[in-house]
Amino acid sequence: MVSHTTHIRVRYGETDKMGYLYYGNYATYHEVGRVELIRSLGMTYKSMEDEHGILMPVMNMEMRFVRPAHYDELLSVTTEVREMPEKTIVFRTEIRNEKNKLVNGGRIKLCFISAETGKNVGVPDFLREKLTPYFEATQD
Amino acid sequence: MVSHTTHIRVRYGETDKMGYLYYGNYATYHEVGRVELIRSLGMTYKSMEDEHGILMPVMNMEMRFVRPAHYDELLSVTTEVREMPEKTIVFRTEIRNEKNKLVNGGRIKLCFISAETGKNVGVPDFLREKLTPYFEATQD
Amino acid sequence: MVSHTTHIRVRYGETDKMGYLYYGNYATYHEVGRVELIRSLGMTYKSMEDEHGILMPVMNMEMRFVRPAHYDELLSVTTEVREMPEKTIVFRTEIRNEKNKLVNGGRIKLCFISAETGKNVGVPDFLREKLTPYFEATQD
Amino acid sequence: MVSHTTHIRVRYGETDKMGYLYYGNYATYHEVGRVELIRSLGMTYKSMEDEHGILMPVMNMEMRFVRPAHYDELLSVTTEVREMPEKTIVFRTEIRNEKNKLVNGGRIKLCFISAETGKNVGVPDFLREKLTPYFEATQD
Repeated sequence: MVSHTTHIRVRYGETDKMGYLYYGNYATYHEVGRVELIRSLGMTYKSMEDEHGILMPVMNMEMRFVRPAHYDELLSVTTEVREMPEKTIVFRTEIRNEKNKLVNGGRIKLCFISAETGKNVGVPDFLREKLTPYFEATQD
Repeated sequence: MVSHTTHIRVRYGETDKMGYLYYGNYATYHEVGRVELIRSLGMTYKSMEDEHGILMPVMNMEMRFVRPAHYDELLSVTTEVREMPEKTIVFRTEIRNEKNKLVNGGRIKLCFISAETGKNVGVPDFLREKLTPYFEATQD
Repeated sequence: MVSHTTHIRVRYGETDKMGYLYYGNYATYHEVGRVELIRSLGMTYKSMEDEHGILMPVMNMEMRFVRPAHYDELLSVTTEVREMPEKTIVFRTEIRNEKNKLVNGGRIKLCFISAETGKNVGVPDFLREKLTPYFEATQD
Repeated sequence: MVSHTTHIRVRYGETDKMGYLYYGNYATYHEVGRVELIRSLGMTYKSMEDEHGILMPVMNMEMRFVRPAHYDELLSVTTEVREMPEKTIVFRTEIRNEKNKLVNGGRIKLCFISAETGKNVGVPDFLREKLTPYFEATQD
């Protein structure tokens, strides 16, 4: 398993008239979580697109909204990849507030598309190599 | 069942560097779909908040992204309520492009909160009355 | 002079905790105003980018915020081009609420860039042709 | 003068199909700059709203877009208050990229509104006290 935590402070423009972080903005926070998890592996999602020509569109997403997040709260965003990706990759994210209470949890599945051909190409080798050490069986 | 279709044109600022409608912006399109379905019943979500003191926070959401939507496309957003709401209400939304191809589909569950007490109050009477005609059994 | 009015309803996710349309979202409303003015000329901004390879980045913007816009208000967005564009084009936009009170006014200058070369190319001929009839001198 | 620099990384959802940080999103970056400048004074904008009942709506804004910012760039946002605020406060912000090249510069004027009365109340005492040391004349 790979896990990474980053922090995001709720911006004024991200709140809504209820005074909460607008529900549509959580997808962006999950995106930041994914991107920072990839950066923690020693590569960037940007280089995947720009240098390797791999796009990662989202296929589906599930989220539950447990309690509201408010303006100026510093949220912790913990993102995990629990299974070695093959055709697709699944990121699980939990967002907690400053009291460590769960705000939002979700699961987002993405695929790997060649920017050139538009075809689904599965997990690229350079990402597989970065991820393999985290998924090697611990044998007795 | 209640069903309503509205149209939304993809704004430039809603696209991302892939050239697609950013996946996080679909939640807003679903919101517009819900709000317009409620307006089609002869009331407004705004009046629910401002006059009746009922807030409707989102509890959970599931979405699948079937094909990309592009800048300036005029999308049709069809929203349905298939079951009479009680404690919660579920909106199912399908978004189609100008060729009537499915772009995105999802299911969002909301609850009804009293702005005054913060308590879950279930479907308010004035909404139940508006919805009842759509769910009356057709008996033989 | 060319002038065009379009309408935009304030979305929930566009409000902030003050209950107002967030000030950063006006730039998007001005964008929609520009795009619809161009559409009213019988062409689309999308075709300028996709078919003619012309991008129009914003060079500068000035806005004044006269009174707040609120959730679910149907705003009228009136956009004008008052001078025939040459190297740059200036759009002036006024946003009014349902009582026809001024909410926001602004002035945005854009240039014309070749997507291929990245160079500033001035107003393209096909746009000049569309605009010319609106700027012809009325002679005595 | 008060000056403060904070850093913001460009999110995927903040880019547009040109591949640039969408022009409408700069207003949010300026907001973050203001909020972090206020935090650097030992108070928070959140407490101004929640504890002191002071809202700070934007009155006007001017921005110039010097060069594009791209996805994943870590921008530095430097915000200054150059004059002691009285009825209004002016924040000047410069946004630079990782090569220290100017991306965007702007000037935003806000006023101070009582949440209770809706009236313009001028700079509140607690903020004036925090700012005074930065504006005291250095006499010979």
